Amino acid sequence: MIDKEIKVLDKGYVKLISFMGSDNSPLSDARLSSQAKPDIKRDDGLRSYLWENEHKSTFQSMICQIELKLPLFVLHQLHRHRTVSFDGLEIESSEEGFRKWFSPNEQSGRYSKFEDEFYIPEKVLAQDTKNKQGSVDTLDINSQALFMTELATHNEYGYEMYTRYLKFGVSKEYGRLFLEPNLYTRRRVTGDFVNWCNLEKLRLDPHAQPESRAYAQGISEILKFLWPKSYELFEEYTLHAVKFSRTEMEVLQYLASTYRLSDFDPAITKEWETKLGKKRFESFLIKIGIS
Amino acid sequence: MIDKEIKVLDKGYVKLISFMGSDNSPLSDARLSSQAKPDIKRDDGLRSYLWENEHKSTFQSMICQIELKLPLFVLHQLHRHRTVSFDGLEIESSEEGFRKWFSPNEQSGRYSKFEDEFYIPEKVLAQDTKNKQGSVDTLDINSQALFMTELATHNEYGYEMYTRYLKFGVSKEYGRLFLEPNLYTRRRVTGDFVNWCNLEKLRLDPHAQPESRAYAQGISEILKFLWPKSYELFEEYTLHAVKFSRTEMEVLQYLASTYRLSDFDPAITKEWETKLGKKRFESFLIKIGIS
Amino acid sequence: MIDKEIKVLDKGYVKLISFMGSDNSPLSDARLSSQAKPDIKRDDGLRSYLWENEHKSTFQSMICQIELKLPLFVLHQLHRHRTVSFDGLEIESSEEGFRKWFSPNEQSGRYSKFEDEFYIPEKVLAQDTKNKQGSVDTLDINSQALFMTELATHNEYGYEMYTRYLKFGVSKEYGRLFLEPNLYTRRRVTGDFVNWCNLEKLRLDPHAQPESRAYAQGISEILKFLWPKSYELFEEYTLHAVKFSRTEMEVLQYLASTYRLSDFDPAITKEWETKLGKKRFESFLIKIGIS
Amino acid sequence: MIDKEIKVLDKGYVKLISFMGSDNSPLSDARLSSQAKPDIKRDDGLRSYLWENEHKSTFQSMICQIELKLPLFVLHQLHRHRTVSFDGLEIESSEEGFRKWFSPNEQSGRYSKFEDEFYIPEKVLAQDTKNKQGSVDTLDINSQALFMTELATHNEYGYEMYTRYLKFGVSKEYGRLFLEPNLYTRRRVTGDFVNWCNLEKLRLDPHAQPESRAYAQGISEILKFLWPKSYELFEEYTLHAVKFSRTEMEVLQYLASTYRLSDFDPAITKEWETKLGKKRFESFLIKIGIS
Repeated sequence: MIDKEIKVLDKGYVKLISFMGSDNSPLSDARLSSQAKPDIKRDDGLRSYLWENEHKSTFQSMICQIELKLPLFVLHQLHRHRTVSFDGLEIESSEEGFRKWFSPNEQSGRYSKFEDEFYIPEKVLAQDTKNKQGSVDTLDINSQALFMTELATHNEYGYEMYTRYLKFGVSKEYGRLFLEPNLYTRRRVTGDFVNWCNLEKLRLDPHAQPESRAYAQGISEILKFLWPKSYELFEEYTLHAVKFSRTEMEVLQYLASTYRLSDFDPAITKEWETKLGKKRFESFLIKIGIS
Repeated sequence: MIDKEIKVLDKGYVKLISFMGSDNSPLSDARLSSQAKPDIKRDDGLRSYLWENEHKSTFQSMICQIELKLPLFVLHQLHRHRTVSFDGLEIESSEEGFRKWFSPNEQSGRYSKFEDEFYIPEKVLAQDTKNKQGSVDTLDINSQALFMTELATHNEYGYEMYTRYLKFGVSKEYGRLFLEPNLYTRRRVTGDFVNWCNLEKLRLDPHAQPESRAYAQGISEILKFLWPKSYELFEEYTLHAVKFSRTEMEVLQYLASTYRLSDFDPAITKEWETKLGKKRFESFLIKIGIS
Repeated sequence: MIDKEIKVLDKGYVKLISFMGSDNSPLSDARLSSQAKPDIKRDDGLRSYLWENEHKSTFQSMICQIELKLPLFVLHQLHRHRTVSFDGLEIESSEEGFRKWFSPNEQSGRYSKFEDEFYIPEKVLAQDTKNKQGSVDTLDINSQALFMTELATHNEYGYEMYTRYLKFGVSKEYGRLFLEPNLYTRRRVTGDFVNWCNLEKLRLDPHAQPESRAYAQGISEILKFLWPKSYELFEEYTLHAVKFSRTEMEVLQYLASTYRLSDFDPAITKEWETKLGKKRFESFLIKIGIS
Repeated sequence: MIDKEIKVLDKGYVKLISFMGSDNSPLSDARLSSQAKPDIKRDDGLRSYLWENEHKSTFQSMICQIELKLPLFVLHQLHRHRTVSFDGLEIESSEEGFRKWFSPNEQSGRYSKFEDEFYIPEKVLAQDTKNKQGSVDTLDINSQALFMTELATHNEYGYEMYTRYLKFGVSKEYGRLFLEPNLYTRRRVTGDFVNWCNLEKLRLDPHAQPESRAYAQGISEILKFLWPKSYELFEEYTLHAVKFSRTEMEVLQYLASTYRLSDFDPAITKEWETKLGKKRFESFLIKIGIS
């Protein structure tokens, strides 16, 4: 997997550079703190327990460095938290947690010359006029084609100006003002498993911009390869988990209280218990208030 | 509220030193990003929306500095993430997120002499032998009293040694090796609303050690005073929220799918809709799969 | 000073939004840790001592929020550490320390429409062909004028495309691909004194890009207004301080060892002692090896 | 080196658990940003250039996890910044930079029982009564011996109480209130090279408490083993570097201005130039103002 380019978008990639730690690292770290002996039969249970109960620091000695080739606007977007709109007011804010552990090195274009590589989208989305939550796929093919052509032409002209003025002696930092944000650049990012998962959680969201989601999917291939069991825990307890507020829980508990466990087909309750495990099934019933 | 000591435990306190920002700070920050105009009628809705959708950086210009007088062991515990046990294996790990924004100044005892002040618990808990999750309240009164007396005596002797050896010329950093972790110290901590809430979430938990919980409660009085509306959002969407894993959601959705909304008393569904608001009620029904 | 716009570049500004803490905050924090009493006569000495000896956490309860209107490329540059070149190889990397304490909210243009405001430089610098350290001011006036006109034209055309495609229904996140990095945006940043000083140190450097330096100068006006005595310490011990490596110190000490203090005019040594204070003058002589 | 215990103090150790990255990592990261080709002859020069010019993020993909067995008071001290006194006022504050990248897991004693292992110092230092800067080595042997015996007795009695009350059923979190801060515990810390160097800079200082310095020395053996060339740069440009304030530089430049380079023995100036390299020697002369 190391140094293998996983293709993303029309000209980009993600690539594993180096890593440390395995799916077993959280186990030995946790066992140190309680001086317990290794016990293979309980490994999966312990790992799951650690993630579910948010002992995430035990997953922070699993670290990897990834190289990305990506358009500038995606790079800047990876630092931001996307959101839906509020009654026509639309907001986007930084997500601090995400940036904490990263030590990126970025190609800057202040010194080196950028290559003539721009991202041209395969599909151009329309504004979602109903809820303004972002984009939807309803733009006619002709408008899309026109957009792509005009964008490529604008990029080309800008790049020509960039090249011409560099030749005139204009410094690169001024020359690059002609280059649009779909220009490709390269970056290396080092992060631990917990931080990569924070990025995945935000960017694998169906509402995330398709280009960011494409990079999140590329990164997830690397994470699954390196730490398959830990990544599964992320999917179960974080990526696909759903949170209910206090008031929502009140409604849910009222709803659930109209049932008794005995109302259900024993085959089905047995299946639930198997899926979740006996203990978690019990604690689940308590959470929603079924007796 | 500034400089007012809120008593905690037998000899401790928490005290607000200074602050910036109000419940309206997140609103003006969010409206900057979309260049929207103020609109008082929608203030509560927007603030709630921002917190619920995790636009927490808009709450990070609400900052306060708090002074704590607390036993050393509580101070060290505030840096740690408590946990329940796993089949007899018991683990405790750091919670990184918590420490991120704090800039504490602490009385150290390396230079200044500690005063003769030790925390003596009012109630000494027993080990929870069933699930080893921590402590329970089943120790007989006599054992408790004996414990308190012996602890006070041990502290007194240690403090006597500490004083004697300082007089002999032993440096304070060696002298304090005689002092147990229930010694009181003072500390100032500066944090933003989001970080204080992280601490509250961990320490207001019923399983948290009683002494830490007492400080979290003292801090919550300050937070509620400064930012009552934001604190309410923390309670609704974070402190008392409940998360369900992917598999738990499958069971929950199966359970809910056996209902139709029309099965319920319209007065009750009306009440739910009022509590949650129309939009959130709709999205709640979608989350659990009732049509 | 609050809400007062300090003009920067052709259309930008910096503006103080809110703050907490004064030049005296580090004093009371430090005195807590040693339980010392206030002593006005020693205030300046203590503050100076704290900064000089890198007790910077005592300056971290001085916090302010600043709003910036700035071109996108300056915004992105504020996250990066500038450097000179190494034998023709030119590098630019992130400076992690800088980003640590900031909680920015940024206007994104994914939702709100950008206004037609672009930064056009007053002076366009040439590439420094000798040492490639960045830019020098040797470009002829005509080339500069041509550059400015062409850039403005390119911006105008891009903005026209942006507007046209938004009308066609293209979503804002695709539309903005037509907009160059000299587009203006707004951002609010909250940071403590230590972090603002880190930014100042990097961006007030004579080698920093002129546009970034202009914002650093605007910010320094706010910092000097809020905390004049602390800012002076930053200037004395950090901004204008010079570091010598181990080997450089060896050379320096050899050089200095050829002197005795008595070789100098007593009036001059007296002046030095007054400037530095007796104690610091003594420790300075020891540092460089004059006896 | 992995899993090898490096002995520290009477019963402690440091031990490398895992790592990633080599002395060449900063080179390939830096070359990515400028798309330059590898060039072995310039490797040492580039690495040195990166560190000297504070492009430290290129050293942040060199990461290692270290296990420490250490007394509780040393553990807590590793989080704090030591200082000398100011006219009798003595201060100690946190050093935020240090904590940034660490994800420690610590044995807590809330769940697991502590072993009967306490640190007894070999040498007990006296308070430095002259400048109160800490400790000096002037305590008579008899007082030292008495201190050690009394401390061991006090520890023993405390541990006996601890054991007795655990048997009575007192929970571990209360039981451990009997245990002094010279109790040994274990911890694992994961950090990158830059952060480990921050710790080394603070704790290798001759004024640091001897016990902390002992751990810093143990850690330096690991760092030197893993990244010998990078560690040398840390020694040259950071550990043994000396910083002069603006006013000190004025004095220094006055002093130096009385010389011309031609005043010195050419053999000596040749030697300087060789030690520092031609470029750095030139920039050194400019820094101190010799022409």
